[in-house]
Amino acid sequence: MTTTHPCRSDISLCPLGTKSAPERELVCIFGTGDLGRSLGQRLLQTGYRVVYGSRRPHSCDPLPQGAQVMSHTEAAQLATVVIACVHREHYDFLEAAAPQLKGKVLVDVSNNSEKGLYPESNAEYLQSLLPEVSVVKAFNTISAWSLQNGSSDAHRQVYLCGDSADAKQAVRELATSLGLSVLDRGCLSAAREVEDFPLQLFPQWRLPLCLATGLTAFFFFYLLTRDVIYAYVEKDKDISFRIMVSLANKVFPIVSLIMLSLCYLPGVLAAFIQLYRGTKYRRFPDWLDRWMLCRKQLGLLALGLAFLHVLYTLLIPIRYYVRYKIAENVVSVIRENRTTVFDTTVAWRSDSYLSMGILGFVLFVLLGITSLPSISNALSWREFSFVQSKLGHLTLFFCTLHTYLYGWDRFLRPSTYKWWTPPGYMLCLVVPSVVLVLKLLILLPCMDRSLGRIRQGWERRGPEGEGTKPLMA
Amino acid sequence: MTTTHPCRSDISLCPLGTKSAPERELVCIFGTGDLGRSLGQRLLQTGYRVVYGSRRPHSCDPLPQGAQVMSHTEAAQLATVVIACVHREHYDFLEAAAPQLKGKVLVDVSNNSEKGLYPESNAEYLQSLLPEVSVVKAFNTISAWSLQNGSSDAHRQVYLCGDSADAKQAVRELATSLGLSVLDRGCLSAAREVEDFPLQLFPQWRLPLCLATGLTAFFFFYLLTRDVIYAYVEKDKDISFRIMVSLANKVFPIVSLIMLSLCYLPGVLAAFIQLYRGTKYRRFPDWLDRWMLCRKQLGLLALGLAFLHVLYTLLIPIRYYVRYKIAENVVSVIRENRTTVFDTTVAWRSDSYLSMGILGFVLFVLLGITSLPSISNALSWREFSFVQSKLGHLTLFFCTLHTYLYGWDRFLRPSTYKWWTPPGYMLCLVVPSVVLVLKLLILLPCMDRSLGRIRQGWERRGPEGEGTKPLMA
Amino acid sequence: MTTTHPCRSDISLCPLGTKSAPERELVCIFGTGDLGRSLGQRLLQTGYRVVYGSRRPHSCDPLPQGAQVMSHTEAAQLATVVIACVHREHYDFLEAAAPQLKGKVLVDVSNNSEKGLYPESNAEYLQSLLPEVSVVKAFNTISAWSLQNGSSDAHRQVYLCGDSADAKQAVRELATSLGLSVLDRGCLSAAREVEDFPLQLFPQWRLPLCLATGLTAFFFFYLLTRDVIYAYVEKDKDISFRIMVSLANKVFPIVSLIMLSLCYLPGVLAAFIQLYRGTKYRRFPDWLDRWMLCRKQLGLLALGLAFLHVLYTLLIPIRYYVRYKIAENVVSVIRENRTTVFDTTVAWRSDSYLSMGILGFVLFVLLGITSLPSISNALSWREFSFVQSKLGHLTLFFCTLHTYLYGWDRFLRPSTYKWWTPPGYMLCLVVPSVVLVLKLLILLPCMDRSLGRIRQGWERRGPEGEGTKPLMA
Repeated sequence: MTTTHPCRSDISLCPLGTKSAPERELVCIFGTGDLGRSLGQRLLQTGYRVVYGSRRPHSCDPLPQGAQVMSHTEAAQLATVVIACVHREHYDFLEAAAPQLKGKVLVDVSNNSEKGLYPESNAEYLQSLLPEVSVVKAFNTISAWSLQNGSSDAHRQVYLCGDSADAKQAVRELATSLGLSVLDRGCLSAAREVEDFPLQLFPQWRLPLCLATGLTAFFFFYLLTRDVIYAYVEKDKDISFRIMVSLANKVFPIVSLIMLSLCYLPGVLAAFIQLYRGTKYRRFPDWLDRWMLCRKQLGLLALGLAFLHVLYTLLIPIRYYVRYKIAENVVSVIRENRTTVFDTTVAWRSDSYLSMGILGFVLFVLLGITSLPSISNALSWREFSFVQSKLGHLTLFFCTLHTYLYGWDRFLRPSTYKWWTPPGYMLCLVVPSVVLVLKLLILLPCMDRSLGRIRQGWERRGPEGEGTKPLMA
Repeated sequence: MTTTHPCRSDISLCPLGTKSAPERELVCIFGTGDLGRSLGQRLLQTGYRVVYGSRRPHSCDPLPQGAQVMSHTEAAQLATVVIACVHREHYDFLEAAAPQLKGKVLVDVSNNSEKGLYPESNAEYLQSLLPEVSVVKAFNTISAWSLQNGSSDAHRQVYLCGDSADAKQAVRELATSLGLSVLDRGCLSAAREVEDFPLQLFPQWRLPLCLATGLTAFFFFYLLTRDVIYAYVEKDKDISFRIMVSLANKVFPIVSLIMLSLCYLPGVLAAFIQLYRGTKYRRFPDWLDRWMLCRKQLGLLALGLAFLHVLYTLLIPIRYYVRYKIAENVVSVIRENRTTVFDTTVAWRSDSYLSMGILGFVLFVLLGITSLPSISNALSWREFSFVQSKLGHLTLFFCTLHTYLYGWDRFLRPSTYKWWTPPGYMLCLVVPSVVLVLKLLILLPCMDRSLGRIRQGWERRGPEGEGTKPLMA
Repeated sequence: MTTTHPCRSDISLCPLGTKSAPERELVCIFGTGDLGRSLGQRLLQTGYRVVYGSRRPHSCDPLPQGAQVMSHTEAAQLATVVIACVHREHYDFLEAAAPQLKGKVLVDVSNNSEKGLYPESNAEYLQSLLPEVSVVKAFNTISAWSLQNGSSDAHRQVYLCGDSADAKQAVRELATSLGLSVLDRGCLSAAREVEDFPLQLFPQWRLPLCLATGLTAFFFFYLLTRDVIYAYVEKDKDISFRIMVSLANKVFPIVSLIMLSLCYLPGVLAAFIQLYRGTKYRRFPDWLDRWMLCRKQLGLLALGLAFLHVLYTLLIPIRYYVRYKIAENVVSVIRENRTTVFDTTVAWRSDSYLSMGILGFVLFVLLGITSLPSISNALSWREFSFVQSKLGHLTLFFCTLHTYLYGWDRFLRPSTYKWWTPPGYMLCLVVPSVVLVLKLLILLPCMDRSLGRIRQGWERRGPEGEGTKPLMA
């Protein structure tokens, strides 16, 4: 009999001995690769006995101390749970062990290198090969690395699926005792979905990224036309060098502000829909749901662009062009013997415009930090909503004000409208202004009160079925 | 019999079958709202059988696959554990099911929209309605959202309280098998406290925030008087525009430095108290304990203010006022045909003053990052104390030096003391200097040694009771 | 019989009663210090019964509600598991209780104040004192603080070691039911290692920190010679004040770029080794393995230095020296009646050089953020590799380009090579350029394809033993 550790096990504590007995179960692992080895080691560390099934039991890589190696058929016979750490290409040899596997639990941990390589999922394919085995898909989201140094900062989520409830139960217990958290995804038909998890590439970021790219492209060409091309055509001046910094520093803040407001617009819309319907129990339209789900991503992208804007702005005084302008300006003042007067209003305006920007950005960074998983987990429900809603709208307000102060009186000057097009910062003020106005409406006492009642579960039409009022949670 | 999933469950594995049997328990949920649905789904995913109790079993929202819906009384009869996902306003109907609930475990997950709405906690109220049921308060800190996508980044802490140890044990097992971590808060009388958790709004931040606000207000008006009003009264100049940036950029660093030092002062005081008492086993005075507990918050607020200071400083060259001054200065030099000489000492001073600031800020940011939960968890006890104590005091040293270099020789110039008041940066240097001096005293070999011995559990008065010396942990 | 809580426990639920019975086990704790108290409290909260063993049972500090206190011998008799929260210096009195402890599990939680104080580990020493007890080392990485507020942001990793598998199993169950995650480190001989965990000080940071220090020192003196000393010797000018900012702002970016490239070099080398060997199953040379393991630290240090570089750069316009230069320059222009012409090429170059820097830095910050534990856990395997590899090399590319643009045509000017030495930025371009070229080679279709196959488990020499091909995990 193999003990889990090469240490003396002579002390027998009856009460413990018996209690720990069921735990000391034997698990069989097919395949001695990275994941196979790590799984085995972790199982041994958690008090299981482990036996490996390998094609070359005598000539395979070093295995964790305390584990046995034998042929697949031998190994399969010993355990009720068999974990197949094998590539789909090598399933064939599993068929060889079919008789020994009959009626047992076969865990498929395989992943494919990319999506849609095969018609059906690996697990379903395996089940079709071995109809008399109850196949369970599991552990495919766990990496050998995270198993080895089972530190708290490892991806611990195991997704489970299979057609036999009992088999799943067995694997669930296995995973739980390894300190992993298990989530059941239902029948084996869900295996495809589960196998795609490790292959997915920022699904929730798709939409926001497309939006950001689209907006950036649009405003880039819009401003390119208004500034560079306009100057070239009308004034016959080549200021193309401005593309690198000046233009970028116009596009980024514009897109950032728009995206920030887009991340608070759905919330406001939802509130109005609820007010209109007089209940919170009817589903929102799909487009709104999808929009709501990517608010965090919208906000973070906006923060990234705001960060770019800040860096570009802070670098202004270092630019060759700016230094030249300033020097040239002073020189001209002297040569033409002009006198410059200090305008307090301009000072007020420029300073407060900068301050608003700073305050907005700092709050924005704060929002970003609180959206870090480890922070948001530590927040109570009320704290989280306070930060994301109250501070969020305050941030939006500061940033919008910052932009208005930047525009200042230029809104009225006709010279602003080159080729009858409004400058970028005017365009980008539309959405935020709308959001802020709507938000203000909602904050009106009357609106606020009824909205609160609705979110508490109150329904405008009658008290029937109040018994099943859900909790706000 | 309802299987947890609409899949074939024909394969029976005896050892597993029996072992998993107790897990496959039936749980009854009252209320089909968000939380009710999510809890049910999660229970099903974890291998429980779930039955819903609803007022309108036939006309209620879509429920998780595999769950049954029936009337409250029917549902209550089937399970030993009943979870009531119902608003306090709707407890009445629970009384109807009293006979069926008798002797069972009733879990109250309800929250109120704000504190102190009712004389007693919901759970106690429920217990008073159903004296023959053993009510347990639980799950009220868990959100439906986090249950649904049971990702590792969800608030997993369940607080438990109730008067029946067995009932609590049952709920504890339930919660644990859902992958939640349970903390027992004692008897049902603790329910009020537990129900307040989701409603609390940054309790540990209160004190530091008040402090920050108070200091900011004080120094704002202090500097407003010294700079703006003084200039207006004495020199009859309107420099009010400076409020937006110049003044802010004086107030923020001052408050930041004071708060940073305030976050290291208690530690030093504690050390001296321990040295004086010659033991570590006597409680510190309450005010010191409270102060110690909000050091992290003090530090983070200080970091925020330092961040503001950095941004304001970096924006200086962009300001209209500054550009005007510089230009004007050059113009005057030429018009008056003056010659400017380069002073190496000034260059040294200004550069080292800036460097100290930068180094201090970077270290400060590092401190902030290591105080992120996910980072500080990964640190060993010694690493954490190294960062927070050694690096912390180094940061304080850099920032203080930064301020001294800023002051430079102005400390001696009488012109500095407008209206016989010292400038802000002098005031803010008091506390940090004290802290640094005290810290230096502690670092003296003799002090350090005896302090170390005390923290190891050594007591100045005799060896009695050494058996119960605690561990440093 | 002691109930876990001073509450009524009259309701008996048979099914639950029986199931929870084994949980309500009695645990004995020796020592009533911080850790002893916290452990006891947590055990009580988790449903255990707790009895303390103390030398002065009647005159010891307040203990958690529901726990009993008695003499060591009495306490030891009651429980099968005894936790010794006692300093090694006080083990002697444990020997007194030897007869009562015989055949039981004795958990040693002690830590030493520094490494290598004693010849053997505390646990082994304890075992030698009590040969008939099965000593288990555990809980020494857990702090009293984290046990008390068992919040999710507490260090939860328990390392276990001992010679008796059953004893370890008992402690494992104890720890697991406390919500801690257990990792078995094998026999008691591993205790030394386990006891060193809380004492270790950034072991993986050693190498990168040394490297950073070395490089910084080298480049500091190199540039000191080239700039300051050169100017002093050849031009007889004292520009020593530049050390504080100008020099620092040359050294930091140089070291940063080199370290960033050093953190991607091993990956490229590994790829080439795999291509050369035609398999992924042979171990890399040790130096490469070690190098690979500290890539994250290399990158983060590089990010820190880059951050310093950014701050130093942004502060340039505020410097007294710079302002003086600019003013002086303007003055001279006027006095000598020169005319300055605006050079678009220079504008292009300086702007794009700044832009590259900004983009590089922002991407770099993004890399840093995604390396936060709480973020990287939320990423799928593919997402993580995408960010760290694709974005990482893009960052390196931007930063390298930034440096090349900084150098521009100066590479050709002989005046650049003072004392026949190349300027710093040229030296620091060597490694990154090499890395980028190698990376480009790997990205060639042919190379890429075969490398992909190898990483899928394909081996150049023959298909034998394909059955044991491991999974990519």
